[in-house]
Amino acid sequence: MEYPQESFTATTFAPDSFWAKRRSVVRSQTLRHQLQMLKRTGRYDAFKLQWHPSYSNPPTVWPIPNHLFWDSDVAKWIEGACYFLMDEEDAEVDAAVKELVQMIREAQADDGYINIHYTVVEPGKRFTNLKDMHELYNAGHLIEAAIAHHKHYGNDALLSPILKYVDLLAATFGDGPGQKRGYPGHPEIELALLRLYKVTGDEKHLKLARFFIEERGNPTGGKGGRHYYDVEAEERGELKTETRFYYPQPRSYWYHQAHVPITEQETIEGHSVRAMYLLTAVADLIRLSTPTSEFGAKYLPAVRRLWSNMIEKKTYVTGGIGAIKQWEGFGNDYFLPHSTDEGGCYAETCAAIGVMMLAERLLRVELDSQVGDMLELCLYNAVLTGMSLDGKAFTYVNQLASSEKDRSERFEWFECACCPPNVTRTLGFLGGYVWSPVIEERRATVNVHLYTSATLRLDVSGSTVEISQSTDWPWDGNVAFNVTSPDESVEVDLRLRIPGWASSYEITPQLNNVDIWNGYLFLSSSWIKEHLKFSINFPMKPRIVRPNPLTLQPVAYVVRGPIVYCVEDVDHPWEENHFKNVIFDLGAQLREEKRSEPDKYVAIIAEKGFKDELDLSLWKGKVAAELAPGSGRSPTSPAGRDLCFIPYYLRANRGGKGQMRVGLRVQ
Amino acid sequence: MEYPQESFTATTFAPDSFWAKRRSVVRSQTLRHQLQMLKRTGRYDAFKLQWHPSYSNPPTVWPIPNHLFWDSDVAKWIEGACYFLMDEEDAEVDAAVKELVQMIREAQADDGYINIHYTVVEPGKRFTNLKDMHELYNAGHLIEAAIAHHKHYGNDALLSPILKYVDLLAATFGDGPGQKRGYPGHPEIELALLRLYKVTGDEKHLKLARFFIEERGNPTGGKGGRHYYDVEAEERGELKTETRFYYPQPRSYWYHQAHVPITEQETIEGHSVRAMYLLTAVADLIRLSTPTSEFGAKYLPAVRRLWSNMIEKKTYVTGGIGAIKQWEGFGNDYFLPHSTDEGGCYAETCAAIGVMMLAERLLRVELDSQVGDMLELCLYNAVLTGMSLDGKAFTYVNQLASSEKDRSERFEWFECACCPPNVTRTLGFLGGYVWSPVIEERRATVNVHLYTSATLRLDVSGSTVEISQSTDWPWDGNVAFNVTSPDESVEVDLRLRIPGWASSYEITPQLNNVDIWNGYLFLSSSWIKEHLKFSINFPMKPRIVRPNPLTLQPVAYVVRGPIVYCVEDVDHPWEENHFKNVIFDLGAQLREEKRSEPDKYVAIIAEKGFKDELDLSLWKGKVAAELAPGSGRSPTSPAGRDLCFIPYYLRANRGGKGQMRVGLRVQ
Repeated sequence: MEYPQESFTATTFAPDSFWAKRRSVVRSQTLRHQLQMLKRTGRYDAFKLQWHPSYSNPPTVWPIPNHLFWDSDVAKWIEGACYFLMDEEDAEVDAAVKELVQMIREAQADDGYINIHYTVVEPGKRFTNLKDMHELYNAGHLIEAAIAHHKHYGNDALLSPILKYVDLLAATFGDGPGQKRGYPGHPEIELALLRLYKVTGDEKHLKLARFFIEERGNPTGGKGGRHYYDVEAEERGELKTETRFYYPQPRSYWYHQAHVPITEQETIEGHSVRAMYLLTAVADLIRLSTPTSEFGAKYLPAVRRLWSNMIEKKTYVTGGIGAIKQWEGFGNDYFLPHSTDEGGCYAETCAAIGVMMLAERLLRVELDSQVGDMLELCLYNAVLTGMSLDGKAFTYVNQLASSEKDRSERFEWFECACCPPNVTRTLGFLGGYVWSPVIEERRATVNVHLYTSATLRLDVSGSTVEISQSTDWPWDGNVAFNVTSPDESVEVDLRLRIPGWASSYEITPQLNNVDIWNGYLFLSSSWIKEHLKFSINFPMKPRIVRPNPLTLQPVAYVVRGPIVYCVEDVDHPWEENHFKNVIFDLGAQLREEKRSEPDKYVAIIAEKGFKDELDLSLWKGKVAAELAPGSGRSPTSPAGRDLCFIPYYLRANRGGKGQMRVGLRVQ
Repeated sequence: MEYPQESFTATTFAPDSFWAKRRSVVRSQTLRHQLQMLKRTGRYDAFKLQWHPSYSNPPTVWPIPNHLFWDSDVAKWIEGACYFLMDEEDAEVDAAVKELVQMIREAQADDGYINIHYTVVEPGKRFTNLKDMHELYNAGHLIEAAIAHHKHYGNDALLSPILKYVDLLAATFGDGPGQKRGYPGHPEIELALLRLYKVTGDEKHLKLARFFIEERGNPTGGKGGRHYYDVEAEERGELKTETRFYYPQPRSYWYHQAHVPITEQETIEGHSVRAMYLLTAVADLIRLSTPTSEFGAKYLPAVRRLWSNMIEKKTYVTGGIGAIKQWEGFGNDYFLPHSTDEGGCYAETCAAIGVMMLAERLLRVELDSQVGDMLELCLYNAVLTGMSLDGKAFTYVNQLASSEKDRSERFEWFECACCPPNVTRTLGFLGGYVWSPVIEERRATVNVHLYTSATLRLDVSGSTVEISQSTDWPWDGNVAFNVTSPDESVEVDLRLRIPGWASSYEITPQLNNVDIWNGYLFLSSSWIKEHLKFSINFPMKPRIVRPNPLTLQPVAYVVRGPIVYCVEDVDHPWEENHFKNVIFDLGAQLREEKRSEPDKYVAIIAEKGFKDELDLSLWKGKVAAELAPGSGRSPTSPAGRDLCFIPYYLRANRGGKGQMRVGLRVQ
């Protein structure tokens, strides 16, 4: 039960729950749609190791080959498919998984190596560009696919070749004689190896993960006491003054979180997905080694520091991270523009999935409701917004406001297709995020991070304990719990996250002693025994929140419970300028409106919330203007109208012009 | 009298005027200081064409050789020196000019070519990289130096070899058979050739300038109907997917304003100095060809469009342009962060000098006080801030706020030293910016753009007309005019710019009919004849102005007359955070304080102007926070103190910690 990817099977979502419905769409629609995409684009057959015409195409998104991630696209689909197959049989999906596994098996070289690009396109060049070429990233996703496959099928059809590949990697990389002291430019294999270690118990897997983490950013790890990436670049014959165009400067190793060792990083920098995957592995290794171990004492302060820096200074209200398109990652502290027009905003879907992964690992290291809040925030907003209601259209970038250049819209697939299958697999094992149970002898301690209608079934010393919650979350904050245990001697402790947004809460029946630790309400087994049924209520009402003033965003956000809201042109057909000039009335009455189309949700109507429209005429021909009180606002504005806010995750599901904004100006 | 570089000799600044004092510092200190720098760094002797050890150094600022601009550094110093020698003899400066000219003469190849880098470092490669390597930029500055030299010395010692070089260029570039259809990556030669045409009357010079302008951005001008820069890159063997690191992407031709022909450019883009130098030449060619000519009809709308786009959406309150450090240039519309911490701000001194140059040319095409306002704004703020009071320290980047990474400080010189000698030569011919006289037969029409104590002497049909203004500008708005003309039949029309910041003005004696055209007050020759002495007063008082709301800057600026103010830590020794968290009280009483140290100026004291300090504790561990009225402001703030504002151009002259800010938060 140490990983959500294994523990999720203990959780069953109630059929009418928010998440059961979303997962049902993924199972019935998304898996098939993505399978079609894999087939149509050539990914499905790529492990047959034939030449594909697209291999000659110039790079479209990045100047590294478009097909470089194909291995991982397939692996993530297999992984997601296995999670859903554990719910319910599906002959078509099952057949595809089996065929893909067979192709991967046949694609393996005699020495264990598995990689499409370096087998078909550049044979003989394997491991010559760890920094850019994603070999080890692909290997990591293959490992994760193999673990999921093994769990579902109970056989080694995929695990066995992958273990052979990992043997090759463990022989190749390390600080032993003749080994390469390199590490992947895109972390992923580290967290996968730690999960593999749980499955195999093979110390070699733990050791390799730890090597990749500890060696990272070593300024003298390469030949001649130089940075490994410098040495491998030189060996490839790359000029020092030239750089691939996605790097803003030569030796942009901060992009890979390899500019200095992790323990020396003061601020979170570079590519945000890479940063999250890396820190997820670091947090997991802290957990494994224990926080008080030598490793934990060294790395926990770094992870805490980087987490705080990220949350307080580099995260959007939606949980999205990464302001800068050029490197898909973090900008300066507090540099959080909302749209391309304002200077950026990336908030990649995969990055928010990475925040969830990291938060989940951190919660295993130390319980903290602010971390749990981030998990929930990302899930309902920055992640969920990445998939359409019908499960067949996706976003990669999740800006907080649209612009003419970047409308709010979805696509069926991407050339670089990391996000769609990442959402699939995340929703596949979502049950593992709801709560983290720890079973010690006859005691089950269950930390409840997410509220939803679901049942957790635990085997505690042979007895089946069931913990159910029932709620209309995220639309209603009342959650009814029901604990059943056939055995009186089994102790069940519950710890319930009190969301930071909850200004109050009520537990029924009342507690005599309230024991709260880091934002989690501790319910002792003795209290539970007396109150097998209880409920907790976190009243939800529309709230107005503001970004840190140093972000310079003169806006207010409408939120309710964990849901962040936006406005869309489809509800405001008069809007033509992406809501740039709309001034929101902070005093407007906020009315809730329950809706059922295109899905069940609570809309928020700000009555006469459109207070005023910016009047820019004062600045005509000028760099600055004197402002009389009340000036700067249009005398002929169409103000006085109602504004309709809908959940951000629901955007781009109802047609319209692709004009959308989270956070309206208040001045 | 068509160019300020020639007309300035008709203007004498009164000895106690603001500008006479600044120019005196440049004459006595700056010229010598910069001569020392030229000598110390190797630039002075570089035209001897010996190897200099620094030629092997790796690039420090740009990945093109550091010495690539040396020709222009020397040329700009010669040009500036000649302007000051026209004021007053100076044996040391005179000797240096003569020695440099002799070296340049000897550095010329038999075919006329003059360039340090391509003679010493890469012989045989001339004209193979017009885009990056600044050969034609250097040639342009040599031409400008030659014109100034010719004007001062009255001989052809420099002009003659430069004309030979221009002959080579005119033979090499053009659309004739066997000619290169290329144009410089850094415009400059275009405006220089137009000035040269005025001196020589040689149509070849006009034709070459026009070719460079009209060919620029031609997508099919190179061999095989391709962009010239694509063709020359291919001929150099450059890979398409690689790029020098200062370009954010391959084919960043917008950086050079060569992405499309000038007439097709909708917004001002790329490197801001290049944009200004280019448009200065375009405006001058419009003037030369007349605005109603075929050329004028085609190019004037483009120049107007780009000017408006720049002023309204891409210019700082100081007149500085260019938000983005990476390409020293323009960002998105309204992307005008104030400091490195906020995401950028460049505002290079040379770019503001370029705005002055362009404004001056535009005012020759059509009188418009908003253009005149920009000329004055840049001069007193974005340009003047580039040089210390003692004339021996400079800035290159002129941010509106300091940060730990980029303090507000000055340097004696730069590796890329374009700015210091550019300020020198600008102050050299400054008289030419004050007014633009046009003499037609017995009528002199004088457009007065700047107010200062100075006298303009014009020869009108053999009579010397003198127009004097006397004022304490920029500290006092009263300007007394005195027109003397020995000949009753000479007509003098005056047109006085009414600054946009002047909420009122008073002319004494009063006018019966007020004739204002595009912000210039027309005083007819008949009125002038009756009122040879008159005065105009533009009352100056501290004002609060605001940036366009779409810039998202929650600040107010303190300004007075043409002067933009800032706060410095030296007046607020308690400040440790670059005034980031100071909330300014818009209702504070603004008291003027006349000061004489370190120079004469008017300080503005905002009494108890430090209203509040931002309290960020609400956002601890959070991405957004609920804000109760009055919250978000520190309960223990050191607020309630006075704030002292000083002119921005005076910053970094009095020691301190280098903490400075233009524009304080008002919320």
